[in-house]
Amino acid sequence: MASKNDVQVIIDGRVLTLSANESEEYMQKIALYINNKLEELRAMSGYKRMSSDMQRIMLELNMADDYFKAKKRIAELESDLDERDKSEYDLKHKLVANQLDIESATKEIESLKDEITELQKQIVRLEASSSRK
Amino acid sequence: MASKNDVQVIIDGRVLTLSANESEEYMQKIALYINNKLEELRAMSGYKRMSSDMQRIMLELNMADDYFKAKKRIAELESDLDERDKSEYDLKHKLVANQLDIESATKEIESLKDEITELQKQIVRLEASSSRK
Repeated sequence: MASKNDVQVIIDGRVLTLSANESEEYMQKIALYINNKLEELRAMSGYKRMSSDMQRIMLELNMADDYFKAKKRIAELESDLDERDKSEYDLKHKLVANQLDIESATKEIESLKDEITELQKQIVRLEASSSRK
Repeated sequence: MASKNDVQVIIDGRVLTLSANESEEYMQKIALYINNKLEELRAMSGYKRMSSDMQRIMLELNMADDYFKAKKRIAELESDLDERDKSEYDLKHKLVANQLDIESATKEIESLKDEITELQKQIVRLEASSSRK
């Protein structure tokens, strides 16, 4: 977060002017997240009796916990996507195989129909020659 | 992180004994993450001249940024998975339609073959009756 926009946020009741690369909206979202975390912590037994240093560390540990849980979720989703890639590949493979089956069945149908036409012609010829005798 | 295991970690050079629900390995990973963040910040121009309060807030803003970037990635992956769900549904639908096409082609082939057999029988009969005349 190098300097770009000056954004005023309130964190833990203190008004801070931050120089941020990110949008004001994003910075406010971040401030809200930190303030909500602090509120959660204050509701925890023992937190208020901690030194202010320890309170900060508790906040940071909790934030890091959120981050690692999010990273775990990313890993799960990425592994889900890998699975989907595999099953999509299998489905596409089956679809191509089916398409080839349909093409070969269509050719067989055409050839059987030709054969039927030939046989029917042969019958007509045989019937004609039989009626001539 | 309510009390369960006592875990010793080093954060920002301070040895801390934490009561954690999580494994020692996880707590060490969290401590390493915070220490690495602090090292990144110390390499930034201006950081060392900040008050220690402002330094903590910089750390927390950076950690929240990591968290929100991870959440954005989660949203992207979840939307990818939704897309995959749709395309998998389409592929399965096509596969079922193809399967029905194959079944109907197979039935048509059987019926054409039966027709050929009947026509061949008819020819044999006609040839027999023709030779008798």
